[in-house]
Amino acid sequence: MTNLVQVSPRSTNLYAVSSRVDPQSRFFRNGHQGGVLWLTGLSGSGKSTLAVEAEWRLFRQGWQVLVLDGDNLRGGLNSDLGFAPADRAQNIRRAAEVAKLFAQSGFLVITAFISPYREDRRIAGAINGPAFHEVYVAADLAACESRDPKGLYRRARQGQIPEFTGISAPYEEPLAPALRLETARQSVEACVETLLAYVEEAFRLEPAMTAQTASER
Amino acid sequence: MTNLVQVSPRSTNLYAVSSRVDPQSRFFRNGHQGGVLWLTGLSGSGKSTLAVEAEWRLFRQGWQVLVLDGDNLRGGLNSDLGFAPADRAQNIRRAAEVAKLFAQSGFLVITAFISPYREDRRIAGAINGPAFHEVYVAADLAACESRDPKGLYRRARQGQIPEFTGISAPYEEPLAPALRLETARQSVEACVETLLAYVEEAFRLEPAMTAQTASER
Repeated sequence: MTNLVQVSPRSTNLYAVSSRVDPQSRFFRNGHQGGVLWLTGLSGSGKSTLAVEAEWRLFRQGWQVLVLDGDNLRGGLNSDLGFAPADRAQNIRRAAEVAKLFAQSGFLVITAFISPYREDRRIAGAINGPAFHEVYVAADLAACESRDPKGLYRRARQGQIPEFTGISAPYEEPLAPALRLETARQSVEACVETLLAYVEEAFRLEPAMTAQTASER
Repeated sequence: MTNLVQVSPRSTNLYAVSSRVDPQSRFFRNGHQGGVLWLTGLSGSGKSTLAVEAEWRLFRQGWQVLVLDGDNLRGGLNSDLGFAPADRAQNIRRAAEVAKLFAQSGFLVITAFISPYREDRRIAGAINGPAFHEVYVAADLAACESRDPKGLYRRARQGQIPEFTGISAPYEEPLAPALRLETARQSVEACVETLLAYVEEAFRLEPAMTAQTASER
Protein backbone atom coordinates (compact mmCIF):
# COMPACT_ATOMS: atom_id res chain seq x y z
CA MET A 1 0.00 0.00 0.00
CA THR A 2 2.71 2.46 0.91
CA ASN A 3 4.74 3.70 -2.01
CA LEU A 4 7.78 5.74 -1.05
CA VAL A 5 9.14 8.09 -3.68
CA GLN A 6 11.92 10.59 -3.21
CA VAL A 7 10.52 14.04 -3.88
CA SER A 8 12.68 16.98 -2.89
CA PRO A 9 15.62 18.44 -4.78
CA ARG A 10 16.87 19.83 -1.45
CA SER A 11 17.06 16.65 0.59
CA THR A 12 17.53 12.92 0.21
CA ASN A 13 15.53 12.33 3.41
CA LEU A 14 12.05 13.05 2.08
CA TYR A 15 9.71 10.43 0.73
CA ALA A 16 6.10 10.87 -0.27
CA VAL A 17 3.46 8.46 0.90
CA SER A 18 1.16 8.02 -2.07
CA SER A 19 -2.48 8.96 -1.76
CA ARG A 20 -4.86 6.17 -2.67
CA VAL A 21 -7.27 8.69 -4.22
CA ASP A 22 -6.06 9.53 -7.70
CA PRO A 23 -7.07 12.66 -9.63
CA GLN A 24 -9.13 10.62 -12.13
CA SER A 25 -11.38 9.33 -9.35
CA ARG A 26 -11.99 12.89 -8.24
CA PHE A 27 -12.75 13.99 -11.81
CA PHE A 28 -15.26 11.17 -12.32
CA ARG A 29 -17.06 12.05 -9.12
CA ASN A 30 -17.23 15.73 -10.00
CA GLY A 31 -18.31 15.10 -13.58
CA HIS A 32 -15.52 17.26 -14.94
CA GLN A 33 -11.78 17.27 -15.14
CA GLY A 34 -9.64 19.42 -12.92
CA GLY A 35 -7.55 22.08 -14.57
CA VAL A 36 -6.41 25.67 -14.62
CA LEU A 37 -7.85 28.55 -16.62
CA TRP A 38 -5.04 31.08 -16.38
CA LEU A 39 -6.50 34.51 -17.11
CA THR A 40 -3.91 37.12 -18.02
CA GLY A 41 -4.36 40.75 -19.01
CA LEU A 42 -3.91 44.36 -17.98
CA SER A 43 -5.28 45.77 -14.75
CA GLY A 44 -8.89 46.69 -15.49
CA SER A 45 -9.17 44.29 -18.43
CA GLY A 46 -11.89 42.35 -16.62
CA LYS A 47 -10.06 39.26 -15.34
CA SER A 48 -11.56 39.21 -11.85
CA THR A 49 -15.03 40.18 -13.04
CA LEU A 50 -15.08 37.34 -15.59
CA ALA A 51 -13.52 34.87 -13.14
CA VAL A 52 -16.00 35.61 -10.35
CA GLU A 53 -18.99 35.50 -12.69
CA ALA A 54 -17.88 32.24 -14.31
CA GLU A 55 -17.22 30.71 -10.88
CA TRP A 56 -20.72 31.63 -9.71
CA ARG A 57 -22.46 30.16 -12.75
CA LEU A 58 -20.36 26.99 -12.82
CA PHE A 59 -20.85 26.42 -9.10
CA ARG A 60 -24.61 26.61 -9.53
CA GLN A 61 -24.30 24.03 -12.31
CA GLY A 62 -22.58 21.68 -9.89
CA TRP A 63 -18.94 22.30 -10.69
CA GLN A 64 -16.15 22.25 -8.12
CA VAL A 65 -14.68 25.57 -9.12
CA LEU A 66 -12.54 28.21 -7.44
CA VAL A 67 -11.14 31.62 -8.26
CA LEU A 68 -7.54 32.18 -7.24
CA ASP A 69 -6.87 35.87 -7.31
CA GLY A 70 -3.55 37.64 -7.06
CA ASP A 71 -5.02 40.10 -4.64
CA ASN A 72 -6.52 37.41 -2.42
CA LEU A 73 -3.38 35.27 -2.34
CA ARG A 74 -1.31 38.28 -1.35
CA GLY A 75 -3.42 38.61 1.80
CA GLY A 76 -2.38 35.12 2.92
CA LEU A 77 0.06 32.72 1.31
CA ASN A 78 2.03 35.47 -0.40
CA SER A 79 1.78 38.12 2.31
CA ASP A 80 5.54 37.91 2.75
CA LEU A 81 6.19 39.06 -0.82
CA GLY A 82 6.69 42.56 -2.13
CA PHE A 83 6.68 43.81 -5.71
CA ALA A 84 10.30 43.56 -6.78
CA PRO A 85 10.75 41.39 -9.92
CA ALA A 86 11.91 38.36 -7.93
CA ASP A 87 8.94 38.68 -5.58
CA ARG A 88 6.53 38.99 -8.51
CA ALA A 89 7.97 35.83 -10.05
CA GLN A 90 7.69 34.01 -6.73
CA ASN A 91 4.11 35.23 -6.41
CA ILE A 92 3.23 33.66 -9.76
CA ARG A 93 5.18 30.46 -9.09
CA ARG A 94 3.39 29.84 -5.79
CA ALA A 95 0.03 30.64 -7.36
CA ALA A 96 0.73 28.09 -10.09
CA GLU A 97 1.71 25.47 -7.52
CA VAL A 98 -1.45 26.08 -5.50
CA ALA A 99 -3.53 25.95 -8.68
CA LYS A 100 -1.93 22.59 -9.44
CA LEU A 101 -2.84 21.22 -6.01
CA PHE A 102 -6.45 22.28 -6.56
CA ALA A 103 -6.59 20.99 -10.15
CA GLN A 104 -5.26 17.60 -9.08
CA SER A 105 -7.86 17.60 -6.31
CA GLY A 106 -10.59 17.91 -8.92
CA PHE A 107 -11.16 21.64 -9.09
CA LEU A 108 -11.49 23.85 -12.11
CA VAL A 109 -9.31 26.74 -10.99
CA ILE A 110 -9.80 30.16 -12.55
CA THR A 111 -6.84 32.39 -11.83
CA ALA A 112 -6.88 36.15 -12.25
CA PHE A 113 -3.37 37.52 -12.26
CA ILE A 114 -2.01 40.28 -14.49
CA SER A 115 1.02 37.99 -14.93
CA PRO A 116 2.60 40.35 -17.47
CA TYR A 117 5.71 38.32 -18.32
CA ARG A 118 5.73 35.45 -20.81
CA GLU A 119 8.46 33.69 -18.87
CA ASP A 120 6.40 33.65 -15.67
CA ARG A 121 3.38 32.30 -17.53
CA ARG A 122 5.61 29.70 -19.21
CA ILE A 123 6.73 28.55 -15.76
CA ALA A 124 3.12 28.43 -14.53
CA GLY A 125 2.28 26.31 -17.59
CA ALA A 126 5.25 24.01 -17.07
CA ILE A 127 4.20 23.42 -13.46
CA ASN A 128 0.68 22.44 -14.52
CA GLY A 129 1.31 20.60 -17.77
CA PRO A 130 -1.61 19.93 -20.15
CA ALA A 131 -4.15 20.96 -17.47
CA PHE A 132 -3.02 24.57 -18.02
CA HIS A 133 -5.11 26.73 -20.36
CA GLU A 134 -3.93 30.27 -21.00
CA VAL A 135 -6.80 32.74 -21.48
CA TYR A 136 -5.95 36.19 -22.77
CA VAL A 137 -8.33 38.82 -21.41
CA ALA A 138 -7.62 41.25 -24.20
CA ALA A 139 -8.43 44.90 -23.71
CA ASP A 140 -6.20 47.67 -24.95
CA LEU A 141 -4.61 50.09 -22.54
CA ALA A 142 -6.94 52.97 -23.51
CA ALA A 143 -10.00 50.90 -22.64
CA CYS A 144 -8.57 49.73 -19.32
CA GLU A 145 -7.43 53.23 -18.41
CA SER A 146 -10.81 54.74 -19.20
CA ARG A 147 -12.50 52.21 -16.90
CA ASP A 148 -9.91 52.48 -14.11
CA PRO A 149 -12.24 50.83 -11.56
CA LYS A 150 -9.76 51.15 -8.71
CA GLY A 151 -8.31 54.53 -9.69
CA LEU A 152 -4.91 52.90 -10.14
CA TYR A 153 -4.14 54.20 -13.64
CA ARG A 154 -4.79 57.74 -12.49
CA ARG A 155 -2.38 57.29 -9.60
CA ALA A 156 0.16 55.53 -11.83
CA ARG A 157 0.07 58.44 -14.30
CA GLN A 158 0.70 60.78 -11.38
CA GLY A 159 3.79 58.74 -10.52
CA GLN A 160 2.35 57.45 -7.26
CA ILE A 161 2.64 53.77 -8.24
CA PRO A 162 6.04 52.66 -9.57
CA GLU A 163 6.34 49.94 -12.21
CA PHE A 164 2.66 49.83 -13.03
CA THR A 165 1.91 47.38 -15.83
CA GLY A 166 1.01 49.17 -19.07
CA ILE A 167 2.24 52.56 -17.81
CA SER A 168 5.74 52.14 -16.46
CA ALA A 169 6.23 48.37 -16.79
CA PRO A 170 5.66 46.09 -19.78
CA TYR A 171 2.81 43.72 -20.53
CA GLU A 172 3.83 40.90 -22.85
CA GLU A 173 0.82 39.64 -24.79
CA PRO A 174 0.30 35.88 -25.06
CA LEU A 175 1.54 34.59 -28.40
CA ALA A 176 -0.76 31.57 -28.62
CA PRO A 177 -3.43 31.65 -25.90
CA ALA A 178 -5.92 28.79 -25.74
CA LEU A 179 -8.70 31.40 -25.68
CA ARG A 180 -8.90 35.13 -26.27
CA LEU A 181 -11.68 37.25 -24.74
CA GLU A 182 -12.25 40.67 -26.31
CA THR A 183 -13.47 42.54 -23.26
CA ALA A 184 -13.07 45.97 -24.84
CA ARG A 185 -15.32 45.07 -27.78
CA GLN A 186 -17.77 42.61 -26.22
CA SER A 187 -20.01 42.74 -23.19
CA VAL A 188 -19.21 40.95 -19.94
CA GLU A 189 -22.16 38.65 -20.67
CA ALA A 190 -20.81 37.71 -24.11
CA CYS A 191 -17.32 37.08 -22.76
CA VAL A 192 -18.65 34.93 -19.92
CA GLU A 193 -20.66 32.89 -22.43
CA THR A 194 -17.56 32.37 -24.55
CA LEU A 195 -15.58 31.33 -21.50
CA LEU A 196 -18.26 28.90 -20.31
CA ALA A 197 -18.58 27.31 -23.74
CA TYR A 198 -14.84 26.75 -23.73
CA VAL A 199 -14.99 25.24 -20.24
CA GLU A 200 -17.77 22.82 -21.23
CA GLU A 201 -15.78 21.68 -24.24
CA ALA A 202 -12.45 21.37 -22.50
CA PHE A 203 -13.32 20.04 -19.04
CA ARG A 204 -16.77 18.43 -18.93
CA LEU A 205 -16.88 14.65 -18.67
CA GLU A 206 -19.91 13.11 -20.32
CA PRO A 207 -22.09 11.17 -17.84
CA ALA A 208 -21.86 8.12 -20.10
CA MET A 209 -18.10 8.30 -20.15
CA THR A 210 -17.97 8.67 -16.41
CA ALA A 211 -20.26 5.72 -15.80
CA GLN A 212 -18.53 3.54 -18.36
CA THR A 213 -15.07 4.25 -17.04
CA ALA A 214 -16.24 3.76 -13.47
CA SER A 215 -17.60 0.32 -14.35
CA GLU A 216 -14.27 -0.62 -15.91
CA ARG A 217 -12.35 0.17 -12.78
CA MET B 1 -21.83 42.85 -6.97
CA THR B 2 -18.20 43.85 -6.75
CA ASN B 3 -16.98 44.39 -3.22
CA LEU B 4 -13.51 45.86 -3.04
CA VAL B 5 -11.59 45.27 0.17
CA GLN B 6 -8.00 46.21 0.83
CA VAL B 7 -6.08 43.04 1.55
CA SER B 8 -2.31 43.31 1.61
CA PRO B 9 -0.13 44.62 4.41
CA ARG B 10 2.53 45.34 1.79
CA SER B 11 0.58 47.56 -0.56
CA THR B 12 -2.33 49.99 -0.60
CA ASN B 13 -2.96 49.17 -4.28
CA LEU B 14 -4.51 45.73 -3.86
CA TYR B 15 -8.21 45.10 -3.59
CA ALA B 16 -9.97 41.75 -3.54
CA VAL B 17 -12.97 41.11 -5.75
CA SER B 18 -15.32 39.05 -3.63
CA SER B 19 -16.33 35.60 -4.77
CA ARG B 20 -20.08 35.09 -4.96
CA VAL B 21 -19.65 31.49 -3.77
CA ASP B 22 -19.30 31.50 0.01
CA PRO B 23 -17.79 28.63 2.01
CA GLN B 24 -21.17 27.74 3.54
CA SER B 25 -22.63 27.03 0.10
CA ARG B 26 -19.74 24.69 -0.61
CA PHE B 27 -20.18 22.94 2.74
CA PHE B 28 -23.91 22.40 2.13
CA ARG B 29 -23.26 20.89 -1.27
CA ASN B 30 -20.57 18.58 0.06
CA GLY B 31 -22.60 17.52 3.09
CA HIS B 32 -19.79 18.41 5.45
CA GLN B 33 -17.92 21.42 6.65
CA GLY B 34 -14.47 22.28 5.45
CA GLY B 35 -11.68 22.25 7.97
CA VAL B 36 -8.18 21.17 8.86
CA LEU B 37 -7.09 18.09 10.78
CA TRP B 38 -3.54 19.00 11.68
CA LEU B 39 -1.67 15.78 12.48
CA THR B 40 1.53 16.30 14.43
CA GLY B 41 3.99 13.77 15.78
CA LEU B 42 7.45 12.28 15.44
CA SER B 43 8.78 10.83 12.21
CA GLY B 44 7.48 7.27 12.08
CA SER B 45 4.58 7.94 14.44
CA GLY B 46 2.11 7.09 11.68
CA LYS B 47 0.87 10.50 10.53
CA SER B 48 1.00 9.80 6.79
CA THR B 49 -0.30 6.25 7.13
CA LEU B 50 -3.34 7.43 9.11
CA ALA B 51 -3.89 10.44 6.85
CA VAL B 52 -3.81 8.42 3.64
CA GLU B 53 -6.05 5.69 5.04
CA ALA B 54 -8.59 8.18 6.41
CA GLU B 55 -8.57 10.08 3.10
CA TRP B 56 -9.29 6.88 1.17
CA ARG B 57 -12.21 5.84 3.37
CA LEU B 58 -13.74 9.31 3.55
CA PHE B 59 -13.45 9.77 -0.22
CA ARG B 60 -15.33 6.53 -0.79
CA GLN B 61 -18.04 7.82 1.56
CA GLY B 62 -18.42 10.91 -0.62
CA TRP B 63 -16.28 13.42 1.21
CA GLN B 64 -14.20 16.09 -0.46
CA VAL B 65 -10.99 15.28 1.35
CA LEU B 66 -7.30 15.80 0.73
CA VAL B 67 -4.01 14.91 2.37
CA LEU B 68 -1.45 17.68 2.46
CA ASP B 69 1.89 16.16 3.25
CA GLY B 70 5.10 17.90 4.18
CA ASP B 71 7.02 15.69 1.83
CA ASN B 72 4.65 16.30 -1.08
CA LEU B 73 4.54 20.06 -0.63
CA ARG B 74 8.32 20.20 -0.56
CA GLY B 75 8.35 18.75 -4.07
CA GLY B 76 6.33 21.73 -5.38
CA LEU B 77 5.18 24.82 -3.53
CA ASN B 78 7.98 24.64 -0.97
CA SER B 79 10.74 23.35 -3.23
CA ASP B 80 12.60 26.63 -2.67
CA LEU B 81 12.92 25.98 1.07
CA GLY B 82 15.69 24.24 2.95
CA PHE B 83 15.75 23.02 6.55
CA ALA B 84 17.09 25.97 8.50
CA PRO B 85 14.72 27.07 11.29
CA ALA B 86 13.35 30.02 9.27
CA ASP B 87 12.73 27.74 6.28
CA ARG B 88 10.97 25.17 8.47
CA ALA B 89 8.71 27.88 9.88
CA GLN B 90 7.97 29.16 6.37
CA ASN B 91 7.23 25.58 5.27
CA ILE B 92 4.59 25.27 8.00
CA ARG B 93 3.17 28.75 7.43
CA ARG B 94 2.63 28.11 3.71
CA ALA B 95 1.13 24.69 4.40
CA ALA B 96 -1.31 26.30 6.82
CA GLU B 97 -2.26 28.94 4.25
CA VAL B 98 -2.84 26.32 1.57
CA ALA B 99 -4.87 24.22 4.02
CA LYS B 100 -6.99 27.30 4.68
CA LEU B 101 -7.65 27.82 0.97
CA PHE B 102 -8.79 24.20 0.67
CA ALA B 103 -10.87 24.30 3.86
CA GLN B 104 -12.67 27.43 2.71
CA SER B 105 -13.26 25.72 -0.63
CA GLY B 106 -15.11 22.94 1.16
CA PHE B 107 -12.39 20.35 1.70
CA LEU B 108 -11.58 18.42 4.81
CA VAL B 109 -7.80 18.74 4.76
CA ILE B 110 -5.68 16.20 6.61
CA THR B 111 -2.15 17.46 7.05
CA ALA B 112 0.78 15.27 7.98
CA PHE B 113 3.69 17.36 9.15
CA ILE B 114 6.05 16.60 12.03
CA SER B 115 5.60 20.30 12.95
CA PRO B 116 7.65 19.89 16.14
CA TYR B 117 7.36 23.44 17.50
CA ARG B 118 4.34 24.69 19.45
CA GLU B 119 4.83 28.19 18.10
CA ASP B 120 4.61 27.00 14.48
CA ARG B 121 1.45 25.02 15.24
CA ARG B 122 0.02 28.03 17.06
CA ILE B 123 0.57 30.10 13.91
CA ALA B 124 -1.03 27.41 11.74
CA GLY B 125 -4.00 27.46 14.11
CA ALA B 126 -4.23 31.25 14.10
CA ILE B 127 -4.27 31.25 10.28
CA ASN B 128 -7.16 28.78 10.20
CA GLY B 129 -9.22 29.84 13.20
CA PRO B 130 -11.90 27.49 14.57
CA ALA B 131 -11.64 25.24 11.49
CA PHE B 132 -8.26 24.05 12.84
CA HIS B 133 -8.19 20.80 14.80
CA GLU B 134 -4.87 19.68 16.25
CA VAL B 135 -4.45 15.90 16.30
CA TYR B 136 -1.54 14.47 18.25
CA VAL B 137 -0.26 11.25 16.71
CA ALA B 138 1.34 10.07 19.89
CA ALA B 139 4.04 7.43 19.75
CA ASP B 140 7.11 7.55 21.95
CA LEU B 141 10.54 7.84 20.44
CA ALA B 142 11.42 4.20 21.18
CA ALA B 143 8.41 2.96 19.21
CA CYS B 144 9.10 5.27 16.25
CA GLU B 145 12.78 4.38 16.22
CA SER B 146 12.08 0.66 16.29
CA ARG B 147 9.76 1.03 13.26
CA ASP B 148 12.05 3.40 11.35
CA PRO B 149 10.21 2.77 8.05
CA LYS B 150 12.51 5.05 6.07
CA GLY B 151 15.75 4.20 7.89
CA LEU B 152 16.04 7.81 8.98
CA TYR B 153 16.54 7.22 12.71
CA ARG B 154 19.41 4.88 11.97
CA ARG B 155 21.07 7.51 9.80
CA ALA B 156 20.33 10.24 12.34
CA ARG B 157 21.98 8.18 15.10
CA GLN B 158 24.99 7.81 12.83
CA GLY B 159 25.14 11.60 12.56
CA GLN B 160 24.24 11.60 8.87
CA ILE B 161 21.13 13.77 9.33
CA PRO B 162 21.59 16.95 11.35
CA GLU B 163 18.81 18.35 13.54
CA PHE B 164 16.61 15.28 13.31
CA THR B 165 13.47 15.65 15.42
CA GLY B 166 13.61 13.45 18.52
CA ILE B 167 17.34 12.73 18.16
CA SER B 168 19.15 16.03 17.75
CA ALA B 169 16.23 18.48 17.64
CA PRO B 170 13.28 18.84 20.02
CA TYR B 171 9.68 17.73 19.61
CA GLU B 172 7.27 19.80 21.68
CA GLU B 173 4.17 17.77 22.52
CA PRO B 174 0.77 19.41 22.08
CA LEU B 175 -0.55 20.65 25.41
CA ALA B 176 -4.25 20.43 24.55
CA PRO B 177 -4.82 18.61 21.26
CA ALA B 178 -8.38 18.19 20.01
CA LEU B 179 -7.66 14.49 19.58
CA ARG B 180 -4.88 12.14 20.65
CA LEU B 181 -4.15 8.92 18.75
CA GLU B 182 -2.07 6.31 20.56
CA THR B 183 -0.34 4.71 17.62
CA ALA B 184 2.22 2.87 19.74
CA ARG B 185 -0.46 1.12 21.80
CA GLN B 186 -3.30 0.73 19.29
CA SER B 187 -3.52 -0.73 15.81
CA VAL B 188 -3.71 1.39 12.68
CA GLU B 189 -7.27 0.18 12.25
CA ALA B 190 -8.29 1.30 15.75
CA CYS B 191 -6.63 4.69 15.31
CA VAL B 192 -8.32 5.23 11.93
CA GLU B 193 -11.68 4.37 13.47
CA THR B 194 -11.09 6.88 16.27
CA LEU B 195 -10.10 9.53 13.73
CA LEU B 196 -13.13 8.87 11.51
CA ALA B 197 -15.52 9.00 14.46
CA TYR B 198 -14.06 12.38 15.40
CA VAL B 199 -14.43 13.59 11.82
CA GLU B 200 -18.09 12.54 11.65
CA GLU B 201 -18.83 14.36 14.89
CA ALA B 202 -16.90 17.51 14.08
CA PHE B 203 -17.50 18.05 10.36
CA ARG B 204 -20.54 16.15 9.08
CA LEU B 205 -23.61 18.20 8.27
CA GLU B 206 -26.87 16.35 8.83
CA PRO B 207 -28.92 16.03 5.61
CA ALA B 208 -31.88 17.59 7.42
CA MET B 209 -29.81 20.55 8.51
CA THR B 210 -28.45 21.00 5.02
CA ALA B 211 -31.89 20.90 3.41
CA GLN B 212 -33.42 23.18 6.02
CA THR B 213 -30.71 25.76 5.78
CA ALA B 214 -30.78 25.63 2.00
CA SER B 215 -34.51 26.33 1.98
CA GLU B 216 -33.97 29.32 4.23
CA ARG B 217 -31.50 30.90 1.86
